[in-house]
Amino acid sequence: MRKIVSNTASRKLGLLRHLAASHSRFLASTPVLDLLSTMPSANPSAPALSLDTINPKVLKCEYAVRGEIVTLAQRLQQELLAKPGSHPFDEILYCNIGNPQSLSQPPITFFREVLALCDHPAILDKSETQGLFSADAIERAWQILDQIPGRATGAYSHSQGIKGLRDTIAAGIEARDGFPADPNDIFLTDGASPAVHMMMQLLIRSEKDGILCPIPQYPLYSASIALHGGTLVPYYLDEATGWGLEVSELKKQLDSAKSKGITVRALVVINPGNPTGQVLAEENQRGIVEFCKKECLVLLADEVYQENVYVPEKTFHSFKKISRSMGYGEKDISLVSFQSVSKGYHGECGKRGGYMEVTGFSPDVREQMYKVASVNLCSNISGQILASLVMCPPKVGDESYESYCAEKDGILTSLARRAKALEDAFNNLEGVSCNKAEGAMYLFPCIHLPQKAVKAAEALKTAPDAFYCHHLLNATGIVVVPGSGFGQVPGTWHFRCTILPQEDKIPAIVSRLTDFHKGFMDEFRD
Amino acid sequence: MRKIVSNTASRKLGLLRHLAASHSRFLASTPVLDLLSTMPSANPSAPALSLDTINPKVLKCEYAVRGEIVTLAQRLQQELLAKPGSHPFDEILYCNIGNPQSLSQPPITFFREVLALCDHPAILDKSETQGLFSADAIERAWQILDQIPGRATGAYSHSQGIKGLRDTIAAGIEARDGFPADPNDIFLTDGASPAVHMMMQLLIRSEKDGILCPIPQYPLYSASIALHGGTLVPYYLDEATGWGLEVSELKKQLDSAKSKGITVRALVVINPGNPTGQVLAEENQRGIVEFCKKECLVLLADEVYQENVYVPEKTFHSFKKISRSMGYGEKDISLVSFQSVSKGYHGECGKRGGYMEVTGFSPDVREQMYKVASVNLCSNISGQILASLVMCPPKVGDESYESYCAEKDGILTSLARRAKALEDAFNNLEGVSCNKAEGAMYLFPCIHLPQKAVKAAEALKTAPDAFYCHHLLNATGIVVVPGSGFGQVPGTWHFRCTILPQEDKIPAIVSRLTDFHKGFMDEFRD
Repeated sequence: MRKIVSNTASRKLGLLRHLAASHSRFLASTPVLDLLSTMPSANPSAPALSLDTINPKVLKCEYAVRGEIVTLAQRLQQELLAKPGSHPFDEILYCNIGNPQSLSQPPITFFREVLALCDHPAILDKSETQGLFSADAIERAWQILDQIPGRATGAYSHSQGIKGLRDTIAAGIEARDGFPADPNDIFLTDGASPAVHMMMQLLIRSEKDGILCPIPQYPLYSASIALHGGTLVPYYLDEATGWGLEVSELKKQLDSAKSKGITVRALVVINPGNPTGQVLAEENQRGIVEFCKKECLVLLADEVYQENVYVPEKTFHSFKKISRSMGYGEKDISLVSFQSVSKGYHGECGKRGGYMEVTGFSPDVREQMYKVASVNLCSNISGQILASLVMCPPKVGDESYESYCAEKDGILTSLARRAKALEDAFNNLEGVSCNKAEGAMYLFPCIHLPQKAVKAAEALKTAPDAFYCHHLLNATGIVVVPGSGFGQVPGTWHFRCTILPQEDKIPAIVSRLTDFHKGFMDEFRD
Repeated sequence: MRKIVSNTASRKLGLLRHLAASHSRFLASTPVLDLLSTMPSANPSAPALSLDTINPKVLKCEYAVRGEIVTLAQRLQQELLAKPGSHPFDEILYCNIGNPQSLSQPPITFFREVLALCDHPAILDKSETQGLFSADAIERAWQILDQIPGRATGAYSHSQGIKGLRDTIAAGIEARDGFPADPNDIFLTDGASPAVHMMMQLLIRSEKDGILCPIPQYPLYSASIALHGGTLVPYYLDEATGWGLEVSELKKQLDSAKSKGITVRALVVINPGNPTGQVLAEENQRGIVEFCKKECLVLLADEVYQENVYVPEKTFHSFKKISRSMGYGEKDISLVSFQSVSKGYHGECGKRGGYMEVTGFSPDVREQMYKVASVNLCSNISGQILASLVMCPPKVGDESYESYCAEKDGILTSLARRAKALEDAFNNLEGVSCNKAEGAMYLFPCIHLPQKAVKAAEALKTAPDAFYCHHLLNATGIVVVPGSGFGQVPGTWHFRCTILPQEDKIPAIVSRLTDFHKGFMDEFRD
């Protein structure tokens, strides 16, 4: 198949390499290498890209949620498929990632009706459509189409997203917070992750720029900071007080970073917490806002779990609401709030919808944000539409309202029960203590591992929590993520487990987990 | 509304600031500032992020396709809306961007049927659905759902995309090229842009790393290289030979870059060309492959216009097909092919679907690619589904086949006619010469501007082509992008104009354009 190539230089080099190869058996290699180095081209046997020549920031980046343990799980799954009965479990249970629909959570019907109609508007005025779709979904689809220039759902939108959808989202934020929201402050993005990357890209100039991040944290932050070449400045959440966030700790870590020559640019707060599940108290949030204002930090508020609060004594308050209620406006604090369609009761991870609301930045900085958003043209329109639906769901009187509420409440109350059942199960295990999941989708139990297990892990050059998680996976098919992927107080060990498995499977999971843990502790008891 | 804040340090600072403000009216300000500087916090009046403290790579990045001219167009559009008749035209005609559906190109029915059904699978087995959707769309939706684990279209997928869809895409590539394609080589992405960014992120370590890019180029490349802090190494396409790409020019620029201490990592080739519209000859492509192999460069092949070829004498050949037909395999050349659902006859820009096929990288580098892809979890599922449809459209015998062919051919033959009409119109203008658009969606005419116009532009500190484009927009409402946004031989001036306006509007556009051009030349004639 190889065609004749007219490039003589290449053929000449090939000949020289052939000569070099044969000469080197007999002669000192230096003259031959010298001869080769006079050739104008590079060494054709070196790969164009290798670990030696790859961007070292990429090598530094880690993302445990889809790390080694998930690769192992995928392998086990293939083995189960190829050879049923080859492992002591029938299925892999992915508790590594907040991916509700992968664990059979159904989508919200109204949202999907609207998306389908916007995808294929040609059916909107067909009579059969009335029988298939709810009246308010049809009406909403028309409204949305009218907000899209030329009703073109297949066109690139404005770089920040379709203006009419941003109007809807701003109205939803106003209704949530009781303070004004400006559609021009909304940047619609493919999930929250690209928004976080964009902020890191704007903020990080070199490794001398630091971002204050909670420990434990969601590894998107450590990954993004690594990819952009900055420094993660950790602040520790206090496990003893239910993963409390102390402003004194923020100050201590800020000063420590400053003393090392780090310019701290921003503070990341995840509320409700991931992986820790705590919901911040209003008073605590006020202290954080005051701290950011005083220290001139951009407050990066990850609020993607705003709908996921499971305890009656806690309520979600956005940082924008808190700062506005303190009387702080545009001039006082630079604030970015991240929201996603992937979480909440809807859990539409695959749709990759989300937005950030940016306030307190000068027009020239905003222009730079717009430019960076423009380089990728726009986020996907289905995700944009879904973000508007999430921020403006059916209302009292709409045909879908009751079924929507039933679906939503069914999911949220079930999540609360699952969180409690798993929390109790973890707290019943020897040497395990687990804080309540007040919100979000995770539990982050602390495991007091026996020294023998720690040593066995070290012998394998594995973190002890990763060692535990591997054993758990191999014995039960349950995939959880080692705490070392999120960060933890040195010498403590945790893992993150989602609360998402189907409710009727929870008893079996608890029983598998309990049996495994007993066996593990017996095996490694000091 | 301002609540009492318990943070005493903050209150103390407020008090000091108050003192400072009153003192400074009477005293030299230095001691007060000294007093303030002993406070542990930063200067609260400095913004947390400003142009002085923003990542300078962001400032360097430019993206003309959505640059200043588009901002002006949006303003004019708002003025027209607020005050009809306020400008000498009724509508803004966006010829700045390859966004077919924004200019009324309808989507392909079959594609949208499948997307709608996958968005709302609950209707798949309802009887009304048979009347609304074609039988093969229903069948395809079932097939796709069966390829998605748990039929969960709302779940995050594998980081590279749903395996079954990658199988379909790989089969489509095989059918196109006649050479094997591996689904594990496919990374599904939200349009082609994130894929390009990912490659730049992997390749660029510092400004000492260079990427060979055509001039003129699509500004995604210059923007991405700037954002990742690398160096764009230009190679010039030869306008006189229909934007010919000469390997001797590649070699010259490579050597020149090397002599300046730049390590050239990759070569970008856009085929069919953007903004230049040429379709490379097979022989030319072979020379490029040979060059990359010899010089150990990653070949980044932008092949998003592979369906957009308008002249019978040219055919699209993928670089993968070319390199395999030369007998080069995995070990010989590192090759990335970018594909998008935004272009072709379908033009589904808003869906943000696309993929890259990566071949010739070692497993450890591939692992790094997977990791970087994982940080953003996955691309949107609708875009993934659409990418599979584009690579595997209806076939002979399918219910939709005839209507699909009619829609596709209708669009492509119309685009060919529009390209020819606009090309002819440009060539009829005084001092304008325009190469044929053999493919893609653009014309890139060269305008020989009178010295008086060049001087008038310089007086306004504007590039002369931008000056021309601003005049054109203000006079006609037609938005085109100045050639300076794409790069051009110094001293020459161009603009990029899409071939996408509706066909029945072309005569009016040509007439507005011709009138404007005459007036402009008369005004500025030397």
